[in-house]
Amino acid sequence: MEITRFVFSLLFLVMMTVGSSGSPNHWGRKRVREPCKKLVFYFHDILYNGRNSKNATSAIVGAPAWGNRTILAGQNHFGDLVVFDDPITLDNNLHSAPVGRAQGFYIYDKKEIFTAWFAFSFVFNSTQHKGSINFAGADPLMNKTRDISVIGGTGDFFMTRGVATLSTDAFEGEVYFRLRADINLFECW
Amino acid sequence: MEITRFVFSLLFLVMMTVGSSGSPNHWGRKRVREPCKKLVFYFHDILYNGRNSKNATSAIVGAPAWGNRTILAGQNHFGDLVVFDDPITLDNNLHSAPVGRAQGFYIYDKKEIFTAWFAFSFVFNSTQHKGSINFAGADPLMNKTRDISVIGGTGDFFMTRGVATLSTDAFEGEVYFRLRADINLFECW
Amino acid sequence: MEITRFVFSLLFLVMMTVGSSGSPNHWGRKRVREPCKKLVFYFHDILYNGRNSKNATSAIVGAPAWGNRTILAGQNHFGDLVVFDDPITLDNNLHSAPVGRAQGFYIYDKKEIFTAWFAFSFVFNSTQHKGSINFAGADPLMNKTRDISVIGGTGDFFMTRGVATLSTDAFEGEVYFRLRADINLFECW
Repeated sequence: MEITRFVFSLLFLVMMTVGSSGSPNHWGRKRVREPCKKLVFYFHDILYNGRNSKNATSAIVGAPAWGNRTILAGQNHFGDLVVFDDPITLDNNLHSAPVGRAQGFYIYDKKEIFTAWFAFSFVFNSTQHKGSINFAGADPLMNKTRDISVIGGTGDFFMTRGVATLSTDAFEGEVYFRLRADINLFECW
Repeated sequence: MEITRFVFSLLFLVMMTVGSSGSPNHWGRKRVREPCKKLVFYFHDILYNGRNSKNATSAIVGAPAWGNRTILAGQNHFGDLVVFDDPITLDNNLHSAPVGRAQGFYIYDKKEIFTAWFAFSFVFNSTQHKGSINFAGADPLMNKTRDISVIGGTGDFFMTRGVATLSTDAFEGEVYFRLRADINLFECW
Repeated sequence: MEITRFVFSLLFLVMMTVGSSGSPNHWGRKRVREPCKKLVFYFHDILYNGRNSKNATSAIVGAPAWGNRTILAGQNHFGDLVVFDDPITLDNNLHSAPVGRAQGFYIYDKKEIFTAWFAFSFVFNSTQHKGSINFAGADPLMNKTRDISVIGGTGDFFMTRGVATLSTDAFEGEVYFRLRADINLFECW
């Protein structure tokens, strides 16, 4: 009888293990939203305006018929397409040693207010991080914070997914802005 | 003996549970293709043509050397890049109350026939839906239906993935088209 | 006693099965990095330069203020945006029968060296493959190999994710290049 009770205890243990295995679920049950990795970075965008060729990290390369490529277009810059190669820093100082580059593009995509759509990568090649994180999503930049998707990664960030919360940490006219990215990864391999 | 038989039954049950746990599988076994969420929306694109500034929801912002930004280019519009901020409606009526905005861009990318490549977000901020769904993929628009990828989401659509089936619900010349999007999400958190 | 020992053996078996189920893990444990599908393709890009209209498979459609749409811009082509519809072949011969099309765009996005950002689809419609694979990521093209993300797929590649390793197999001046794509899929449905 003692042994039988012990067997039942074991069985119970096994069943609990199976039941609570917390295995991810692709069919609609809620999964625990606990990041497997959290990262915070800043990146710095200096837009080419015809006079800052040396310092600029980005440039308008597409514009609507009513715009040009040295001045952001009217109607809240609707249609302006900007390519960037921005330094990534650990703090909010433009002159801190960059730990990587934010590379990709954004488009202003609404006539009535400022809003943008981003697709880019964080590219790292330092002792701390090697690899890339890929992002895409809408950036309604007048909101204090806004979420975009982490759609993949390579190297240290192999196959990762998650959400990055962007906030505008600073901006100076139409030439400089600094974004803070709070990256929360929910799939880590 | 009765107890032993009962123990075996339990064991059998446990093993069945383990065997059929249907847990997702990243190494090649087939997973059940049952959506965890299904959504249907329409979105409406009115292309700027130099005369419809007020109503236009999209504009050509990039074009090949043989094109311009008010008329879609020859060779099946190859190379035309269009930025859009289109209203999303629940039915196929352009004048229905929008439930969100489709924001992003498409490019025509074949000389021989009409075909496009889309990257955009559905952005919702209503009582019904808050958050965004991000899409990317090829849209061979002469096909009755074509599938693009849901590559991520935020808010109510946190970390989602899936497939959206696009179909052209209507078009008027080169100024207006309406797409129906049947969104099937297969990963819901 | 014999039976009890047998029960314990069974229990042990069950627990091993549960313990080693290798079920994917979205909260930080390492998963086995074994592809569920491996594919190798070549794709061929012939850039429009004003004189090769017939053969060109791609065209500059966006450029910085200092560039134009028939000659790649100075400063390592920074800001040039190229739309492509390239044939995909199984071997490295441009004239082999294409098995699909690589459709999308790339942007050159650094002033100091050549580097690019890609977003595109492999579109298949043959007896061998039907469906599409969607890619996005940074392509530091001076590196021998570089990894981009497989962010989704449709048809035969429904919901897939993975990594594609690009390498430049050949290039001729600024008109032709051929990329080899070693695609490793780690999520197959």
